[in-house]
Amino acid sequence: MSHPSSDGAPADGAADGNTGYGSKPFKRSRSHFADRITADGRDGWPVEAGRYRLVASRACPWASRAVISRRLLGLEDALSLAVTDPIQDHRSWRFTLDPDGRDPVLGIRFLREAYDARETDYPGGVSVPAVVDVPSGQLVTNDFQQITLDLATEWTALHRPGAPELYPEPLREEIDVVMAGVYRDVNNGVYRAGFATGQGEYEAAFRDLFRRLELLSGRLADQRYLVGDTITEADIRLFTTLVRFDAVYHGHFKCNGFKLTEDRVLWAYARDLFQTPGFGDTVDFHHIKQHYYRVHAGINPTGIVPVGPDLSGWLLPHHREELGGRPFGHGTPPGPVPAAEEVPPSGRPEHLLTGS
Amino acid sequence: MSHPSSDGAPADGAADGNTGYGSKPFKRSRSHFADRITADGRDGWPVEAGRYRLVASRACPWASRAVISRRLLGLEDALSLAVTDPIQDHRSWRFTLDPDGRDPVLGIRFLREAYDARETDYPGGVSVPAVVDVPSGQLVTNDFQQITLDLATEWTALHRPGAPELYPEPLREEIDVVMAGVYRDVNNGVYRAGFATGQGEYEAAFRDLFRRLELLSGRLADQRYLVGDTITEADIRLFTTLVRFDAVYHGHFKCNGFKLTEDRVLWAYARDLFQTPGFGDTVDFHHIKQHYYRVHAGINPTGIVPVGPDLSGWLLPHHREELGGRPFGHGTPPGPVPAAEEVPPSGRPEHLLTGS
Repeated sequence: MSHPSSDGAPADGAADGNTGYGSKPFKRSRSHFADRITADGRDGWPVEAGRYRLVASRACPWASRAVISRRLLGLEDALSLAVTDPIQDHRSWRFTLDPDGRDPVLGIRFLREAYDARETDYPGGVSVPAVVDVPSGQLVTNDFQQITLDLATEWTALHRPGAPELYPEPLREEIDVVMAGVYRDVNNGVYRAGFATGQGEYEAAFRDLFRRLELLSGRLADQRYLVGDTITEADIRLFTTLVRFDAVYHGHFKCNGFKLTEDRVLWAYARDLFQTPGFGDTVDFHHIKQHYYRVHAGINPTGIVPVGPDLSGWLLPHHREELGGRPFGHGTPPGPVPAAEEVPPSGRPEHLLTGS
Repeated sequence: MSHPSSDGAPADGAADGNTGYGSKPFKRSRSHFADRITADGRDGWPVEAGRYRLVASRACPWASRAVISRRLLGLEDALSLAVTDPIQDHRSWRFTLDPDGRDPVLGIRFLREAYDARETDYPGGVSVPAVVDVPSGQLVTNDFQQITLDLATEWTALHRPGAPELYPEPLREEIDVVMAGVYRDVNNGVYRAGFATGQGEYEAAFRDLFRRLELLSGRLADQRYLVGDTITEADIRLFTTLVRFDAVYHGHFKCNGFKLTEDRVLWAYARDLFQTPGFGDTVDFHHIKQHYYRVHAGINPTGIVPVGPDLSGWLLPHHREELGGRPFGHGTPPGPVPAAEEVPPSGRPEHLLTGS
């Protein structure tokens, strides 16, 4: 299966585990654990309801892809979800949001424990998303580029009735091309800008980012979704960066060519997705802002979290339905968020007004 | 004479000499040198054409007040101007833009030399604006709150024909009240937010800032200028913060409730002033961005200067003339900028486009 990590984009891999920046250009490290959970179980990890646990931070764009896919496909019962504290420390991502600071299913306090259960003294970073085998407590995969594709194509037997096709066979080639550009210039581009250690490196990332956003804006001017007329994996991947854009990337990562709200097309596109069941109902702006501004001491040494911007606009009408399109193709929207997984009011846009 | 520093606003004084932040709440230090240059010379410094030199950084909002006043009042020939490098170092503001790195009139390399000439081993900060007595090379004053008021009211004999009244007697009480709020919440408020060392201190400054901006926006909705229907000192003081808002305060100082461009009234008001001779022709956006992002290592340790935002909007029509008003009262606009003082293309908004 072709996917973005195999066609010239920068190395995929370890997600949002950077806690600052080094003296070398920012380079995302390759996922170390790339086993796949498949229908035929060829890597030793067969798709099975109730066997695995998805560990995610709502702050992290890479993990949020999986959280959204799981919702859209109706995998909530089959694949349980652990949500980490938005602030990781030197011991890795923490389960401090749970009673006694332990994940109630895995019984661990730090995600690193699942990595250690899989490989003793693993020296690499501990990243989300991570899929953990519940019986053994072992990490199965942290390959963020592959996890969502497998949820869409390997977990089909467990999809809800009416689940959309997020990676449909006939469109894969086009989806892959779009996602490769989005990954290089947007998803990873904001990190290249934000973690740049030199002016030239930053400016190159900035240029690539805004050139790509302008291309995407043009593409989406008359077309409701990135590929075809239904939501695909490509939209999920663009969304997870756009939803963070004004809240963190614009200021913290110096991606300040324009705010998302200043690009009419992209802003309406992002609002459309945000208001679609499965997208906005997974977003916790409080987690997002706390994570970025408090963890990256190398670029925000005070750890002060901005009050702005005003996020209430995410709920404004988008009028994208006038472009037509069938969000879920022949399928239907997902049902409501399970009560235990609801984003608390503190993370919702209507509770994050600014100023007076 | 009543002025903002005497009515409860935070202590006035040393201008943009902060190179970071300490562990205590941000507090602007009081000007140490507060002699006044007056028509009657009662402090020993009589108004005299050609005797004094104004030292300013185009990056600094406090110094920029004086640069604008000097232009509006036509004092260019009477009071010469030295423009410093936007980046000061531990030796203070530098004349590295001049041949051999020396101010051609004062013959000094660092502004500190003029402070030292006035007082041996002066232990305080070296700030701009500074007015230096050319014959002795001594600093006369760095009292940024008073310098512009004296230019307006004491230097009248040297004003150009048609110079506006920037601090007219009948309006002083109202001007003072407006300026006190603008100083506390806006001029100094952005610094209180940006140099805050704790979340609570920052949030209080943020709240005060955006509450004040909303009040000002309301006041200016149907009224072209802050006090009366002509430009006054109050407009100069608000302008110098607004013109820096999106370029530096929004991101670097976390004043991100909204961009100036997102407040219809304030944005049009600021553009109106920018396009008025004497305002925009003194602004160097390159100096502004370089200074803030490269000098404040405590809040931007990488020293990377953002490419954005797009500043070309400063030249768009503002339509504020529809509100009436007489920008210069019974007077006239100033003539063109002296050739030697023109802001280079690198600092003008039309040359600071972003992205592709």
